[in-house]
Amino acid sequence: MHETRPAQAADILVSGAQVISPGEEPVVIQKGDVAVSGSRIAYVGPSPAPEEFRRGARVLDGSGLVALPGFVNAHTHAAMTVFRGFADDMPLMEWLTQKIWPSEARLDGDAVYWGAMLACVEMIRAGVTTFADMYFFMDETAKAVERTGIRASLSRGLIGSAPGADGALAEGTELCEHWNGACGGRITTMLGPHAPYTCPQAFLEKVMEAAADLEVGMHIHLSETEGEVRECRGLHGGMSPIELMDSYGLFEFPVLAAHCVHASDRDIEILSAKGVGVAHNPGCNMKIASGIAPVPKMIRAGVKVGLGTDGAASNNNLDLLEEARIAAFLHKLASGDPTVLPAGEALYLATLGSARALGLDRDIGTLEAGKKADIILIDATGPHMYPHHDMVSQVVYSARSSDVRTVIIDGEILMEDGAILLVDEEEVVARAEERAQALVRA
Amino acid sequence: MHETRPAQAADILVSGAQVISPGEEPVVIQKGDVAVSGSRIAYVGPSPAPEEFRRGARVLDGSGLVALPGFVNAHTHAAMTVFRGFADDMPLMEWLTQKIWPSEARLDGDAVYWGAMLACVEMIRAGVTTFADMYFFMDETAKAVERTGIRASLSRGLIGSAPGADGALAEGTELCEHWNGACGGRITTMLGPHAPYTCPQAFLEKVMEAAADLEVGMHIHLSETEGEVRECRGLHGGMSPIELMDSYGLFEFPVLAAHCVHASDRDIEILSAKGVGVAHNPGCNMKIASGIAPVPKMIRAGVKVGLGTDGAASNNNLDLLEEARIAAFLHKLASGDPTVLPAGEALYLATLGSARALGLDRDIGTLEAGKKADIILIDATGPHMYPHHDMVSQVVYSARSSDVRTVIIDGEILMEDGAILLVDEEEVVARAEERAQALVRA
Repeated sequence: MHETRPAQAADILVSGAQVISPGEEPVVIQKGDVAVSGSRIAYVGPSPAPEEFRRGARVLDGSGLVALPGFVNAHTHAAMTVFRGFADDMPLMEWLTQKIWPSEARLDGDAVYWGAMLACVEMIRAGVTTFADMYFFMDETAKAVERTGIRASLSRGLIGSAPGADGALAEGTELCEHWNGACGGRITTMLGPHAPYTCPQAFLEKVMEAAADLEVGMHIHLSETEGEVRECRGLHGGMSPIELMDSYGLFEFPVLAAHCVHASDRDIEILSAKGVGVAHNPGCNMKIASGIAPVPKMIRAGVKVGLGTDGAASNNNLDLLEEARIAAFLHKLASGDPTVLPAGEALYLATLGSARALGLDRDIGTLEAGKKADIILIDATGPHMYPHHDMVSQVVYSARSSDVRTVIIDGEILMEDGAILLVDEEEVVARAEERAQALVRA
Repeated sequence: MHETRPAQAADILVSGAQVISPGEEPVVIQKGDVAVSGSRIAYVGPSPAPEEFRRGARVLDGSGLVALPGFVNAHTHAAMTVFRGFADDMPLMEWLTQKIWPSEARLDGDAVYWGAMLACVEMIRAGVTTFADMYFFMDETAKAVERTGIRASLSRGLIGSAPGADGALAEGTELCEHWNGACGGRITTMLGPHAPYTCPQAFLEKVMEAAADLEVGMHIHLSETEGEVRECRGLHGGMSPIELMDSYGLFEFPVLAAHCVHASDRDIEILSAKGVGVAHNPGCNMKIASGIAPVPKMIRAGVKVGLGTDGAASNNNLDLLEEARIAAFLHKLASGDPTVLPAGEALYLATLGSARALGLDRDIGTLEAGKKADIILIDATGPHMYPHHDMVSQVVYSARSSDVRTVIIDGEILMEDGAILLVDEEEVVARAEERAQALVRA
């Protein structure tokens, strides 16, 4: 936390904040400075920073604020904000067949753009600085990411068993060609084979071939429900979805696997050995009643676990701080042990853990000199944030994402003291609302 | 929802809000008015209200806001805010013996007053308009309730097996004599026998005698942990804590029972037959790994279930909206059925359900003419609150308690557009912080 980079004038200096950076144990500086130069962090350490990091910098007063690395939402479908609250408390198949699929059939690029814009603004407000997305019309989501200044890893969802699968793969390939590394590296891409039960082996072979050509990883849903695992074992000689994907060679590529709720001990060995990133979505898994992912066991086995919200049609918000709290609560309950998944580990999952799951931990997930400047400032002065016995505990167990006051991504201030700077928020909600209402009309 | 009371000028008129009042199904008025006269609601219905409810009223513009009855926190230990974040992620007995009890031994009235003040301000901000409390130095908590304008049902915690139990009962009795019905009825009281395992029968007999004299009910912890139930069955001829309390005649009085996590089918029959109120604390039960209360079964059996946060030393905030969401998520997961505990029912639990559990549903828990004017206005214009497909779902599954903008309790505006009006909030957090740090110093 005391590293510096070659002396240079800083552009932004967060001055005198409590600085928390996740790791095995969170590193806490009671009164620290964070200097930003260009898109990267130039200094993290005690306050005041050396003179060269203060000279010419725009100073953000950190009094009463906690500086953290931005939250990394490891799994979502951003544009599905248009369906938030449209169909809750329903059985999964009824929800899909009667509500979501008929409405999704009416989706167009314009609806996806404004749905993704709404999602990006919501996430910036909640201190989410990076998200991993899989959906359709992904050029529009990429434009929303470009426009709003957030960081994202984007993939075009691929249903290999559906008509037009090859066209979808071509779109997914174009997305990678066009957007991977765009916006100064803020946008990265993956291919998005939806799930083993929607992608036959022959199709996955094509996806892997494309991934090798494009040098990208893959974002996939694995073992979300018990039924899907049972069906897979029945069809594929007893193999679980994770064993099946391993047998196909998928894990020779970087893979971000959402859910892994019903992962066996053997599955966990594979995920660990192959360095598969896992996006744990505890709120969604509870709300849809999918089950409890064996996260403490995965962590002990060295699996790269991060946290996601899943889409707002099912969860229903994109609030990763809420997910961190739910993750801690859920795994204490499931294990019958209140010492499981302590606050520092929940914070790790929401930041560095997710960054590792996305393969972006070289650039994001901690506050360290040299990393990308994705920094959030949380107000610690609300009554629910007192007393100040332990700020990691206050953030994980008591803060609300609305306590995020200022958000810096890639060295740009996107929200300052609660005000979104680069986007007309009223226009975003109005246009998203129009599109959303049109989509669900009979 | 269209009731009126005898024509009279109103003092406050909430004009043009979306009005939601809980019930079997929530009643929703897309554009409604709520008029307040004195401490009570005079009109709830379509906007504009008849002329007599508008004449002379202070108008609060309800555009973009959702009007709801205030949340009712059915179980907490308000002053324990001083221990928030002081000792998390620990085994229960280590937490109690090494951390909480030694610090509690240093508690005094001053620390309880400022801890309770912090709790009241935090709850008002989060839209909690009533809370049920059990703790020590309760005169000080009563003064904080008097000072802040919140509504509360207060009880002095009684450890019958400890030295000084009779003195504590005398204090609990005095609390009732002094404060029951105080502040125009805003304060009510109960007696607070802590739990069956800390209160022997002879002591409970005295408590019941006092309750009969005082005409008050009792607030007690029942069947929070598996161990406590096992021990009780061992000591009392196979009887569960709930059966034991029934055999003592406790349930002939109005009883508010916190937790009931390990309630058997027989226990649920008793709770239902005797009209016992149950405060379900899902966040706390998860965080301390106590287990999952059989809430859907209790509701089906007609038990009066409400929601509580428990104390901030264990949960760690007093955010009842968070509890409502966690309750819905937890019981969907536990039952494997996403249709269990839908949004409307979660909202009911946090309002009318808790009001019934406290025996205060004649006065609070819904927005209806004649009831006490405990009204909260929630901002529905944040990005996470769009689209507006279903506002009950948005409130329960996506809103944050920080979306509460305005809070009216007993006809007084205590918070307006995010500003606490009657209390110097900075003083409260500063003094609570001082006391909290002094308490935990070695």
